Amino acid sequence: MRTKVGIIGSGPAGLMLSHLLHLQGIESIVLENRSRKEIEETIRAGVLEQGTVDLLKETGVADRLLKEGFLHHGIELQFRGRRHRINMNELTGGKSITVYAQHEVIKDLVATRLQDGGQILFDVRDVRLLDIETSSPKIRFQKDGVEEEIECDFIAGCGGYHGPSRKAIPEQVRKEFKHTYPFSWLGILAEALPSNPELIYSNHETGFALISTRSSDIQRYYLQVEPTDIIENWSEDRIWTELHRRVDLNDWKLNDGPIIQKNIVPMRSFICETMQYGRLYLAGDAAHIVPPTGAKGLNLAVADVQVLSKALTNFYHEQETELLTQYSKICTRHVWKAQRFSAWMTRMLHRNFDHSPFEYGLQLAELDLVTSSASAAKSLAEQYVGLPLEY
Amino acid sequence: MRTKVGIIGSGPAGLMLSHLLHLQGIESIVLENRSRKEIEETIRAGVLEQGTVDLLKETGVADRLLKEGFLHHGIELQFRGRRHRINMNELTGGKSITVYAQHEVIKDLVATRLQDGGQILFDVRDVRLLDIETSSPKIRFQKDGVEEEIECDFIAGCGGYHGPSRKAIPEQVRKEFKHTYPFSWLGILAEALPSNPELIYSNHETGFALISTRSSDIQRYYLQVEPTDIIENWSEDRIWTELHRRVDLNDWKLNDGPIIQKNIVPMRSFICETMQYGRLYLAGDAAHIVPPTGAKGLNLAVADVQVLSKALTNFYHEQETELLTQYSKICTRHVWKAQRFSAWMTRMLHRNFDHSPFEYGLQLAELDLVTSSASAAKSLAEQYVGLPLEY
Repeated sequence: MRTKVGIIGSGPAGLMLSHLLHLQGIESIVLENRSRKEIEETIRAGVLEQGTVDLLKETGVADRLLKEGFLHHGIELQFRGRRHRINMNELTGGKSITVYAQHEVIKDLVATRLQDGGQILFDVRDVRLLDIETSSPKIRFQKDGVEEEIECDFIAGCGGYHGPSRKAIPEQVRKEFKHTYPFSWLGILAEALPSNPELIYSNHETGFALISTRSSDIQRYYLQVEPTDIIENWSEDRIWTELHRRVDLNDWKLNDGPIIQKNIVPMRSFICETMQYGRLYLAGDAAHIVPPTGAKGLNLAVADVQVLSKALTNFYHEQETELLTQYSKICTRHVWKAQRFSAWMTRMLHRNFDHSPFEYGLQLAELDLVTSSASAAKSLAEQYVGLPLEY
Repeated sequence: MRTKVGIIGSGPAGLMLSHLLHLQGIESIVLENRSRKEIEETIRAGVLEQGTVDLLKETGVADRLLKEGFLHHGIELQFRGRRHRINMNELTGGKSITVYAQHEVIKDLVATRLQDGGQILFDVRDVRLLDIETSSPKIRFQKDGVEEEIECDFIAGCGGYHGPSRKAIPEQVRKEFKHTYPFSWLGILAEALPSNPELIYSNHETGFALISTRSSDIQRYYLQVEPTDIIENWSEDRIWTELHRRVDLNDWKLNDGPIIQKNIVPMRSFICETMQYGRLYLAGDAAHIVPPTGAKGLNLAVADVQVLSKALTNFYHEQETELLTQYSKICTRHVWKAQRFSAWMTRMLHRNFDHSPFEYGLQLAELDLVTSSASAAKSLAEQYVGLPLEY
């Protein structure tokens, strides 16, 4: 097999890249080690930045999103028993976020790619990258027990944190930055009516809680738990008691209902510098992981491939390599800012029980600042709806 | 002796309070355990917020400040070998800071108080607070070996961190918040021409440095050093080598010259809640200490007594006690925001050698945000020139 861009991974980065390249007449093949069913059902993030929605709209994959997604013009920050609204729309000159699950984006992109004649090879095994330092890199893999090879001009490594791409960059070339936060999130899906028209981020003295939504009858709630905690410790009763404690107000109660899914996810940050080596370009979780508090994961993946598709378009249509050369620099700068935002949101909102009373006081003062200063609120809002890429 | 307000301490808080009360026709006596010479010569802070300067102007103690102080419309943040200006004046709708040493403010206030017939008792000893829970509290002390007592309506505890006032509040009533930062500042005064028209805050990979000024021929520079370091380790040569390393650019060199004073100061935060107990009101360092990075110490002291003088004026002129009741709440909210700002500036600008490469990356991303986002820069600028008191 031969193609222009071999794409490893059919997450948001890989599928979106294939879609954007297709619109520029540049062919690609996407390889995925899971099945279509599996990628279309894995529950992940659910908050899309304005820029992500705009790109999906402009490129014709937003029909269902516009119908079924929830447009949010603000978020609420709760602390010391009071709720404070950040009017993102007003603070950013009209920008918003859309709550629409990542696996729905995946479904839309898969359907569009297949409809446009795109090639996605599911259920591949043993993916290996070869000759990435040459101008004709190759991807070898097994499909239905048969060894296959794709020869291409470029490889896009979009296979997630555990994928093979990053590891194909020699260790002495890449620098990895890691951080583990002293919190985990217990996430649930519950059959209930929406509790609130907008997301609520609550810093309660017993811990953080996030009230989100998934649809008109399924709600997405999160609780801060200890990193060592296990899901078996959390009965339905205990989850509801804790959620109510952390978000209920005198005149406001959370809607509850049967819990249809629950799991605990750790919170960590990861960045790989460089994001490019030879003809290999990393994008999305292959190059960086953010804690979920800032809701940046999917959006960073889309930002990466927006730059990469432009760079590849410049290469194929204008024989211009400048943007390819700048790819890693542009993306890592954007990623670091998103990491900073995610770490800041995480630290501002979670209750760190190792903190001194002084540190806890600083945290509440930070929340006080953000909810009482227009410029501090504007800075939060701009980052929440998504900072522009700086070329 | 009898007076309306007995003021312990002749720092900026005590002197300014006495001055403000005098302008409202409310008499006070200031007690100070040091000599006039000593308080007029102790080198301390040197950055005045817009609101502090405005208050000094409005109340007629700014003549020399306006002549000799340096009006700064911005500051410079230096990192990764580049300098970025924060245009505070533009970002805050015309506000600025003034570089004018604290002991000069002290001289101006002492002169004005004495000229207005104010009583400042210097060189007192063994100051004790009595009956603060009653409506006629007393201050006992020794003056020239003789035991004296002032009976008053209120006591203002402005005697600094080590003064007797805070300790007069029963331990079970006050809550103290403490934090020690893992840095100290080596500060020098040098005979040199000003190096730069504005302050430079430099985050260099070997540590923080601050370039400030004192006059047209004396400059004030600071170096981050280890908290365990001692001044004997720092020869003149070593100081200059390190300062040049941390701030020089290819096309810019620091002005150096003979060092006429050098010392090392630790960096810590402290807050006492409550700031009021019975008829005792704490103000300034007696109630809170900030690290010098945000230049908030003197300004917080002035903010406290601005509230306190209003509250006492309401009491004496309108028989209104509401503001006296709210004093601690209003001031501690303001203080916590200033603590947050000071801690944030400190952590953003100092090199923490215990930090992981990820944490260092976040720090640089924070600097990148603040110097590339107008709203983030505006939030910094507003806090630097001084947030308004919220009544």
